[in-house]
Amino acid sequence: MARAGDLSPEEFREAASRVAEWVADYRDRVEEFPVLARVSPGETAAMLPSSAPEDAEPLEAILDDLDRIILPGLTHWNHPGFLAYFASSSSAAGILAEFVVATLGVNAMLWRTSPAATELEERVILWFRELLGLPESFEGVILDTASTSSFTALLAAREAAGVDSRELGLTGRSDVPPLVVYISNQAHSSLEKAAIAAGLGRQSLRRIETDDRYAMDARALERQLRSDLKAGALPTMVCATIGTTSSNAVDPIARIADICAEAGVWLHVDAAYAGPAAMLPEKRELFDGWDRADSIVVNPHKWMATPMDCSVLLFRDRRPFRASLALTPEYLSSEHEGALDLMDVGLALGRRFRGLKLWFLFRQMGAAGLRALLRRHLGLAADFADRMRRDSRFELAAPVPFGTVCFRAHPRRTRSGTSEARMNAVFDDLEAANEGGRVSNELEASNEWNRELMARVNRRGPVFLSHTVLDGRFTMRLAVGSVHTEARHVEAAYLILCEEHDEMAGAGGSAIGEERMTTV
Amino acid sequence: MARAGDLSPEEFREAASRVAEWVADYRDRVEEFPVLARVSPGETAAMLPSSAPEDAEPLEAILDDLDRIILPGLTHWNHPGFLAYFASSSSAAGILAEFVVATLGVNAMLWRTSPAATELEERVILWFRELLGLPESFEGVILDTASTSSFTALLAAREAAGVDSRELGLTGRSDVPPLVVYISNQAHSSLEKAAIAAGLGRQSLRRIETDDRYAMDARALERQLRSDLKAGALPTMVCATIGTTSSNAVDPIARIADICAEAGVWLHVDAAYAGPAAMLPEKRELFDGWDRADSIVVNPHKWMATPMDCSVLLFRDRRPFRASLALTPEYLSSEHEGALDLMDVGLALGRRFRGLKLWFLFRQMGAAGLRALLRRHLGLAADFADRMRRDSRFELAAPVPFGTVCFRAHPRRTRSGTSEARMNAVFDDLEAANEGGRVSNELEASNEWNRELMARVNRRGPVFLSHTVLDGRFTMRLAVGSVHTEARHVEAAYLILCEEHDEMAGAGGSAIGEERMTTV
Repeated sequence: MARAGDLSPEEFREAASRVAEWVADYRDRVEEFPVLARVSPGETAAMLPSSAPEDAEPLEAILDDLDRIILPGLTHWNHPGFLAYFASSSSAAGILAEFVVATLGVNAMLWRTSPAATELEERVILWFRELLGLPESFEGVILDTASTSSFTALLAAREAAGVDSRELGLTGRSDVPPLVVYISNQAHSSLEKAAIAAGLGRQSLRRIETDDRYAMDARALERQLRSDLKAGALPTMVCATIGTTSSNAVDPIARIADICAEAGVWLHVDAAYAGPAAMLPEKRELFDGWDRADSIVVNPHKWMATPMDCSVLLFRDRRPFRASLALTPEYLSSEHEGALDLMDVGLALGRRFRGLKLWFLFRQMGAAGLRALLRRHLGLAADFADRMRRDSRFELAAPVPFGTVCFRAHPRRTRSGTSEARMNAVFDDLEAANEGGRVSNELEASNEWNRELMARVNRRGPVFLSHTVLDGRFTMRLAVGSVHTEARHVEAAYLILCEEHDEMAGAGGSAIGEERMTTV
Repeated sequence: MARAGDLSPEEFREAASRVAEWVADYRDRVEEFPVLARVSPGETAAMLPSSAPEDAEPLEAILDDLDRIILPGLTHWNHPGFLAYFASSSSAAGILAEFVVATLGVNAMLWRTSPAATELEERVILWFRELLGLPESFEGVILDTASTSSFTALLAAREAAGVDSRELGLTGRSDVPPLVVYISNQAHSSLEKAAIAAGLGRQSLRRIETDDRYAMDARALERQLRSDLKAGALPTMVCATIGTTSSNAVDPIARIADICAEAGVWLHVDAAYAGPAAMLPEKRELFDGWDRADSIVVNPHKWMATPMDCSVLLFRDRRPFRASLALTPEYLSSEHEGALDLMDVGLALGRRFRGLKLWFLFRQMGAAGLRALLRRHLGLAADFADRMRRDSRFELAAPVPFGTVCFRAHPRRTRSGTSEARMNAVFDDLEAANEGGRVSNELEASNEWNRELMARVNRRGPVFLSHTVLDGRFTMRLAVGSVHTEARHVEAAYLILCEEHDEMAGAGGSAIGEERMTTV
């Protein structure tokens, strides 16, 4: 039974063709699944053997179990009703490229281990940079995620700050002042992780307040910078965001770039999600000033139909990146001293051939196709936002500059009027549950209502929404960003929201209380 | 021309089938290519357009360019003659799994975004742990590379060291002594990168001397630890290696584990390459004591036929990992509080569904098949090592505990005797080139000879070797680790080495001088 090798060429050919069929079938039937998995913790694990099989098994057995055990336990990111978080969808180009990438198995660490992979990666980044409208001074690398890209930028900024952290480290030194990082109070948690990992700690973060559109208050940034400088701290990086995760807020980049230039502080722009929209002339103004950033992260694996993982880190000067991390031990030295070794930017030595994905994508969809895809998403999001504005049962919770709509339901109203009795019951329930001393008020009732409404919508199956909290208020998010999502899927989300809202407002009186009692 | 969407289902089905065919063809014809790319820097780039295409292009155009532009510029990691670095080969199981992974596009960050992916990842790690003979106290996660795994371990160790780096950071604090990391002078450069990234700096590294087998001298470690403690430093992590990159040296783990236990220092074991050999009872003794490590890294994408990337980080206690980096912002909160969110270990939030690769691999090859594969590699490496021992033109440069053979050629000897005249010419050349003051001696002549020999072998095409330096001596490395490599490929490496050696020793007198003049 056991083989000392791999499948034979004939077996492989047959297996590859079989899996190609499975893959095409999956894409055809993905809508049959609920988007959000319905299993309980441990349910999938219980179906898996406790030990690896001793002997080889045929492909059909694996594919059968893939259908029987794995698929029912998955949240289907490529379901067209996946409207949660930021959709990370798999275009045909992305899938086919990954198939080739795995086959080639190239490790693009050194130029010589991957000349074409290195040069293709450089080239598609230049294509992308041009499409984004960034000046020729930008180049970049492809890393795995925005977390890693922003962390890598922070390491370069730390090196550029001039304390020679590379050689001397940060510990046991009386000559190193506290290094400080500036983000808005809406910035992504990855910046906080980056500050922790880099040895700056959570206390190094200055969470600058935001305005009523959840954008960074540039004056507050300026004040904080001044105060930190006065106190002897060393401002190390400002991270501004174009398209925050919570609400797609756009920080005033041009203003922030002025401040950074004046203070000599590294400006990193997190456009991980919204970056691709810079390909659209009508959206370009939202990116005003980002060409003055020291580093920018844009993730094709978010809003550009590229399967995980593909995060593009752009920068204007490779030197601080190399200065922070480049190392060449003897066993990695090669005769191509002038050539670009991609391992020199970033922590990971091993690098997948991710450039191939972008190459397939740009070619199979074309720049025009990508712009059309983004516009379709923007249109669907705008339509949904309009419904939220017009329907008195709902309200928009934030501006909608990109493809993500933040909204809330009004618990009190139904299409046919107010349901005071129902809401009174909610208040009673809340107060009963909160006898321990928590303040129970209308805001909390509204939050509970919205949380329950979202849970009901997500349990229905055809769509999956996620949430955030804005100004203490539970807020639903509908993010249109998948290559598979069409008008009918966003329409379904709206209809299900209405149905569940009306159901909660007018009937099934005990639903909230029951749910709350199991989760509070 | 432009499409606002992706390929239609019919188009996708046809395209997937077409790429499956391309992939199978590539595997059939990979031996037709030279392993090491023959292009010059910039040659591939010159064939690529300067801008992305405006309109969509057909798949055939992309595949044509893949054949015409990319393949000739690649170093073929899946060529059976790839014997350099550590082979990272793509088994059928690994390729097919990646195809499915890209199709599903699951982001395994939270349990609820990927219940089956999370539970499958946990389960295959437990399978692997059992096969490796590690106790049940170990669990783990899959990360991208060993660099990332070791860095993640260092962050956990830093947190466990008790200076509250997470909250307070390392800067501007008089209460934090220098944090120190212990590695052997043969440890991988990724540990150095990790220390830099974590804010400890290169000066935090204590490079412990090694014995005549290139293994860490445990007494020297003990002395250094004691001296650092006396000086007020805070020993943070010891990283011991099983199978160093240079020469596959095995540090005395059991002894080091004793020292770490006594000093209360985190022990990390880098078994990124050699780890899979723990599946073989006859190799288990080399791993003696690794069950007492706090963390271990083993990379299935090295010696276990898994395409990049797949690095398993094993640990006995999840808490310091969570304590170092776990963060849950509101937009990532979910109701499954007890379930495992894989994002909590590691820097990257987004996570590919890598567990599927190991699942396919274990099932399609079986544990018996994997052990047979490893034994085939060990046998081929042992055969090659025997040739190096028996053939007076060559010598072994280090013990061969695993699949990598370190060896050198003796420049002076040919099968038919000594070629003093030739070597005298080499010395003359070296002295002429070194008038600037470098010491020219027999060692340098031998190094130049070996470097030139390897370059000649690699230029031939059928095989690709890499090198290291041991005790100042240039050393060739032949690493058997690919699923594709058979006896005839290792045999070819030997024959080509002999041919080029004899050619250099007996004829073509100016070859060394010419090459040296272009590279020195």
